[in-house]
Amino acid sequence: MAKRVILAYSGGLDTSVIVRWLTDKGYEVITYTADVGQGEELSEIPDKARASGAVEAIVEDIKEEFARDFCMPTLRALALYEGKYPLTASLSRPLISKKLVYYAEKFKADYIAHGSTGKGNDQVRFELSVWGLNPDIDVLAPVREWEFKAREEQVEYAKKHGIPVKVTKEKPYSIDRNLWGVSIECGPLEDPWTEPPEDAYQITTSPEKAPNEPEYVTIGFREGSPVSLNGKEYKLLSELILDLNRLAGKHGVGRIDMVENRLVGIKSREIYEAPGAIVLYEAYRDLLSLVTDRFTFHYFINHIPHEYAKLVYEGLWFTPLREALDAFTERLAGDVTGEVRLKLYKGHVSVVGRRSPNSLYVEDLATYSEKDAFDHIAGKHFTKVWGLPIRVLGRRGKS
Amino acid sequence: MAKRVILAYSGGLDTSVIVRWLTDKGYEVITYTADVGQGEELSEIPDKARASGAVEAIVEDIKEEFARDFCMPTLRALALYEGKYPLTASLSRPLISKKLVYYAEKFKADYIAHGSTGKGNDQVRFELSVWGLNPDIDVLAPVREWEFKAREEQVEYAKKHGIPVKVTKEKPYSIDRNLWGVSIECGPLEDPWTEPPEDAYQITTSPEKAPNEPEYVTIGFREGSPVSLNGKEYKLLSELILDLNRLAGKHGVGRIDMVENRLVGIKSREIYEAPGAIVLYEAYRDLLSLVTDRFTFHYFINHIPHEYAKLVYEGLWFTPLREALDAFTERLAGDVTGEVRLKLYKGHVSVVGRRSPNSLYVEDLATYSEKDAFDHIAGKHFTKVWGLPIRVLGRRGKS
Amino acid sequence: MAKRVILAYSGGLDTSVIVRWLTDKGYEVITYTADVGQGEELSEIPDKARASGAVEAIVEDIKEEFARDFCMPTLRALALYEGKYPLTASLSRPLISKKLVYYAEKFKADYIAHGSTGKGNDQVRFELSVWGLNPDIDVLAPVREWEFKAREEQVEYAKKHGIPVKVTKEKPYSIDRNLWGVSIECGPLEDPWTEPPEDAYQITTSPEKAPNEPEYVTIGFREGSPVSLNGKEYKLLSELILDLNRLAGKHGVGRIDMVENRLVGIKSREIYEAPGAIVLYEAYRDLLSLVTDRFTFHYFINHIPHEYAKLVYEGLWFTPLREALDAFTERLAGDVTGEVRLKLYKGHVSVVGRRSPNSLYVEDLATYSEKDAFDHIAGKHFTKVWGLPIRVLGRRGKS
Amino acid sequence: MAKRVILAYSGGLDTSVIVRWLTDKGYEVITYTADVGQGEELSEIPDKARASGAVEAIVEDIKEEFARDFCMPTLRALALYEGKYPLTASLSRPLISKKLVYYAEKFKADYIAHGSTGKGNDQVRFELSVWGLNPDIDVLAPVREWEFKAREEQVEYAKKHGIPVKVTKEKPYSIDRNLWGVSIECGPLEDPWTEPPEDAYQITTSPEKAPNEPEYVTIGFREGSPVSLNGKEYKLLSELILDLNRLAGKHGVGRIDMVENRLVGIKSREIYEAPGAIVLYEAYRDLLSLVTDRFTFHYFINHIPHEYAKLVYEGLWFTPLREALDAFTERLAGDVTGEVRLKLYKGHVSVVGRRSPNSLYVEDLATYSEKDAFDHIAGKHFTKVWGLPIRVLGRRGKS
Repeated sequence: MAKRVILAYSGGLDTSVIVRWLTDKGYEVITYTADVGQGEELSEIPDKARASGAVEAIVEDIKEEFARDFCMPTLRALALYEGKYPLTASLSRPLISKKLVYYAEKFKADYIAHGSTGKGNDQVRFELSVWGLNPDIDVLAPVREWEFKAREEQVEYAKKHGIPVKVTKEKPYSIDRNLWGVSIECGPLEDPWTEPPEDAYQITTSPEKAPNEPEYVTIGFREGSPVSLNGKEYKLLSELILDLNRLAGKHGVGRIDMVENRLVGIKSREIYEAPGAIVLYEAYRDLLSLVTDRFTFHYFINHIPHEYAKLVYEGLWFTPLREALDAFTERLAGDVTGEVRLKLYKGHVSVVGRRSPNSLYVEDLATYSEKDAFDHIAGKHFTKVWGLPIRVLGRRGKS
Repeated sequence: MAKRVILAYSGGLDTSVIVRWLTDKGYEVITYTADVGQGEELSEIPDKARASGAVEAIVEDIKEEFARDFCMPTLRALALYEGKYPLTASLSRPLISKKLVYYAEKFKADYIAHGSTGKGNDQVRFELSVWGLNPDIDVLAPVREWEFKAREEQVEYAKKHGIPVKVTKEKPYSIDRNLWGVSIECGPLEDPWTEPPEDAYQITTSPEKAPNEPEYVTIGFREGSPVSLNGKEYKLLSELILDLNRLAGKHGVGRIDMVENRLVGIKSREIYEAPGAIVLYEAYRDLLSLVTDRFTFHYFINHIPHEYAKLVYEGLWFTPLREALDAFTERLAGDVTGEVRLKLYKGHVSVVGRRSPNSLYVEDLATYSEKDAFDHIAGKHFTKVWGLPIRVLGRRGKS
Repeated sequence: MAKRVILAYSGGLDTSVIVRWLTDKGYEVITYTADVGQGEELSEIPDKARASGAVEAIVEDIKEEFARDFCMPTLRALALYEGKYPLTASLSRPLISKKLVYYAEKFKADYIAHGSTGKGNDQVRFELSVWGLNPDIDVLAPVREWEFKAREEQVEYAKKHGIPVKVTKEKPYSIDRNLWGVSIECGPLEDPWTEPPEDAYQITTSPEKAPNEPEYVTIGFREGSPVSLNGKEYKLLSELILDLNRLAGKHGVGRIDMVENRLVGIKSREIYEAPGAIVLYEAYRDLLSLVTDRFTFHYFINHIPHEYAKLVYEGLWFTPLREALDAFTERLAGDVTGEVRLKLYKGHVSVVGRRSPNSLYVEDLATYSEKDAFDHIAGKHFTKVWGLPIRVLGRRGKS
Repeated sequence: MAKRVILAYSGGLDTSVIVRWLTDKGYEVITYTADVGQGEELSEIPDKARASGAVEAIVEDIKEEFARDFCMPTLRALALYEGKYPLTASLSRPLISKKLVYYAEKFKADYIAHGSTGKGNDQVRFELSVWGLNPDIDVLAPVREWEFKAREEQVEYAKKHGIPVKVTKEKPYSIDRNLWGVSIECGPLEDPWTEPPEDAYQITTSPEKAPNEPEYVTIGFREGSPVSLNGKEYKLLSELILDLNRLAGKHGVGRIDMVENRLVGIKSREIYEAPGAIVLYEAYRDLLSLVTDRFTFHYFINHIPHEYAKLVYEGLWFTPLREALDAFTERLAGDVTGEVRLKLYKGHVSVVGRRSPNSLYVEDLATYSEKDAFDHIAGKHFTKVWGLPIRVLGRRGKS
């Protein structure tokens, strides 16, 4: 009997060819396509999948689950890989894998397949996520093993097998998009010295073409989740993020250009656009800082963002570590209620105001006006005690 | 015999009153004023100091030493306090303290004095730096102890004693400036919800009024130090920084607005301007990332920037820890040679290109073109081994 | 009307004198004495307190709460201050403070008082804990401020006021004891080069006099808590710990000799005895390692034990940071079920066996016998990918 | 022409079979055998190698280089993998690799070969070290790929080809030994619940059979290196370590039993003996703590030991990261001069005294006698300022 495979299917050339290639190898292919906010019409996906040979095609909207269970914990950790990348594509892989496992179990499939290459991070994210949820499912990644060397050979194969290929003028970029952001690579971007051409960007206006007037946005947070934009409450997190993408994207905010270290040992030049995410990070960081004491905040920024980002980037979502880190950040998120006001202008976002019922800012202590309630003599003694180890060091230095 | 004091003297109202106040208390006051790039004319300082009662007034240009020995190590650590503040004023304190100790020893002074309050960080930085270099010198900080409650009382005291007071329309801000940046606090800034008024900013153009055309700058680095701007080599680091301040400041780059945690236990709202520093941080980070392997770069960003910043902020410059951290970052800096190209526009700076003879980016490994030299089968096996702990976890979860 | 004070009262000379001294100053003193496992008879405490002038004397057994809510979270964090000290006295302070606040509120007291000095850590732990729970209560610490210079003056004062002083041959040590361990300082211990005299130790046998036969103990854990010793289940954690103290103490296990850094800037030489705690730490660490994947365990040991210990040591128990860290360690503790077998002998404890239903040790993968299920070719490829950044570095080095 | 290979050769069955196997495959084999303190007579190695088919056999004593350049930096980092393992075998691999590269270049060899399996860490350490030093050399690891399934097949092959096989009663353990310690695995040790049989241990006496009298040893350090034992100065570090191994081993000190996480994703149960190393770690830690200020020591223990150990364990010796970390620890080591006195008894080592010309312990500040020079009032104010964030938190909690 034919072995059954659930394939993560985008509808593009690669995964369409995979459907046929697997079918030719004797597998029975069921495709799975998720709406994670990639902004594409998915209604034709089932026909396309079947035309390529799939016996079944599942299409599902998982935007809200993505926003709530994947983007929000990452925001609460202020996780930026290598200090810059807000983990857009990295975050969708574990959720899609979770769904693939669900359908593999439901349809008693023998395998899960994906369209990632052998030199990227996504293979790691897909496979580890699958194994963490169901270690008995083996994963197929045809692109790592098949015979096609160049894109042309795939196109030819597709044509020969009647796979619908959209003959557009080929864009030189490889693009992955979801509601949390876009990653763009390949083509002219492979030279790290070259400035990214304007046509590489998908969802942000060029700063030069952005509006000449700044725009302010006030983001309301409740217990660590954004709940409103300019006073308008949102029922769906995914809607809020998509609206913020539009707003910040219009002002050219959220472009990232970096050379990053892949887990598989190579450096690659990546362009990201994450207008909504970047604005949310700025806002969350600022509000967290306002409502968190010094000791807690310092531990947080020293131990959480980088390690959380590394974990997500390297495919370790379904681990006790991620759950434990989430337990940590959720405790802090409980106090993150309030408002942050930000200015969007010509590619730049900056926080210009913040307030919270949980604020630990105490004007009487901070002020230099006559309302000052701080005990300056205590400051003197504090300095004496704090500096005692240094004074002892100084004494040794002199002797 | 009168006890002799070396006073860190700015020429402003506070320190002028201190000269007189200490003299009245029977001390003999020698003032010390450093040019750290604050952009003020210092030629009248000696007269002013003497008019206030000083027996001697030292004025010294220490800009290059400041840039080389204080700003550069901090840049190499990419130290940003609480992830945002590039430690402008924090850095000048240890150097000024070093000079105060030098002159205290030279003039056989009994005390060192400064004009900082009991609720700020600067008292800590001054006193720990002094003690680390000479633990036998006691430090006086009249502002912590004297009788004046409000500024008006100081002005009255000054007038009574013939201290020259510039009767300008009082600015509501407290400002500290050096070549690495400006800090601004007090007045309307004490409400964290209020957007900083435009007149708070000292060295940056408002993004709205900045040029309508972006400007590109290419910064050349040699072994961890910036050496050129747009191909023009600089002999003096301080000159390069001051020029970059002008260039980036013109485009509104380098403004920071934050609520930060002081060492003395209070939160305060601070505005900073550090156009040159922020551009250098962006550039250095990017080039370091290009020339450093993954393992080294991850250790660096996880363990150095936050801790180094905390150390500087909390007054611990003259410690073995700072020296040991410098030894660490200097080893990495040895490879940081190359060029970074950045775009300055309307308040925003972004890296758009980087190149280096020490680059670890290998196009043959990174490319998705037919030149690809990466072994995709190895990627498959790598994933298998990397994911083995997760698969074992998954097995436990199922049982 | 007299101001009312709740005093943390041990029944010793210091706190007895404080009762009288405060009474003399016009305060109304209520004493609070907790049984935290110090192994002293507390039945005479109320009479003693009243004889010293107290209007009310509270005595309370809080051993189980101490074990459950303070020792256990610290164990789960494997927190050892400066890598050695299991935070014995440090842990009792926040709990005692919690009780002091409770009774202060109940009895509408105006102040809380303790007997700590101005140079130790305990003042910090008492006062921060009180303020964290009730910021409106001021704390009195007579020992920091009173007139007595030497112990003799206190004895004299006590005698003069009819305070019962046990005229024992004075021990030169200052000792603090609870069920988690003992701290010993002062006297000959103040010379860090001197070996601690045998009479300094309170609850451990000298290794030389310990039994000549080793003894094995098997500790059972359930979800992160020890529940049995050698198969005997315990209802009370405090009982288990006290029994383990006896068992391990008999074999001379758990002595610690260190020069540590106090928060107030001085180094002090401390001797600790924590037989039960040290055995539990060894066991917990070992079992945690067995049931935790590599990624999670490495994060844990890199980011939790030292920081948690620092937090406890520095008085920060009642903070969001401690709660967030507890949330982290509790997630991991959920898997810590199983048994650890340890050998106790002549001052040394060593783990000799461990097993768990949650074990991630897989013999088929680990074995070098013919049962080996590991894919060695995958190992080859893994090495190739893992080492790729090093090979690129090597290439740069050669060029 | 035959391809030339430099093989890391131990003289045991595995590597002897490799010589022949490679020769059969048409390679020309040169063996390299290092004396790293494994305590074996190496004079017969060349004959053995040639009898197995080698064209050349190099034997070299590299003990002192090993001690100085590999063990000492690791000691200065107090690196213990997963908090327990002092990296014995892990450390010899990079040095042996360095020598292999040297001879490969000298003899114009095409390959380097080693006898490690595909499931261990040593393949990683060998190959990364080789590539870091010479990325153009490919590495052969026959054990990962050859046809032999069980030891018996190797023995048969050896006999068939006239390879000298010592027909001893086979020990069930796999053992690696050098002057820094011994690692023991396999056989009954593969059950983590089983106590290691006494015959597993190679260089330590059973605690039960160790002398009934404790022995004291005073270790002298100069600038971070041990230089004397009980006053006897050593010219060679390797001699000092070997003598300390004998001394501490006689008392049963230095046994470690753990389940550890290999880089290749599996857990394995390992037994180590490192009597000298463990004693040196205890001593170094203690002396470092005495001569290092609180800020520096806390950074050190929080950021260095675990990461350094991980780096060594995972094969990353020849990286900028290791060099940068060494630069850090060398700065601190500069102050580590003095003496530590330790007690060795029945399997346990404990520090009982320490002294140093660089000591930062100040008796006048530490003492509770009448010599006390600490300002207790400053302690009160310090507590007030240090606790201010907690008091503000408490205020929020109440509102």
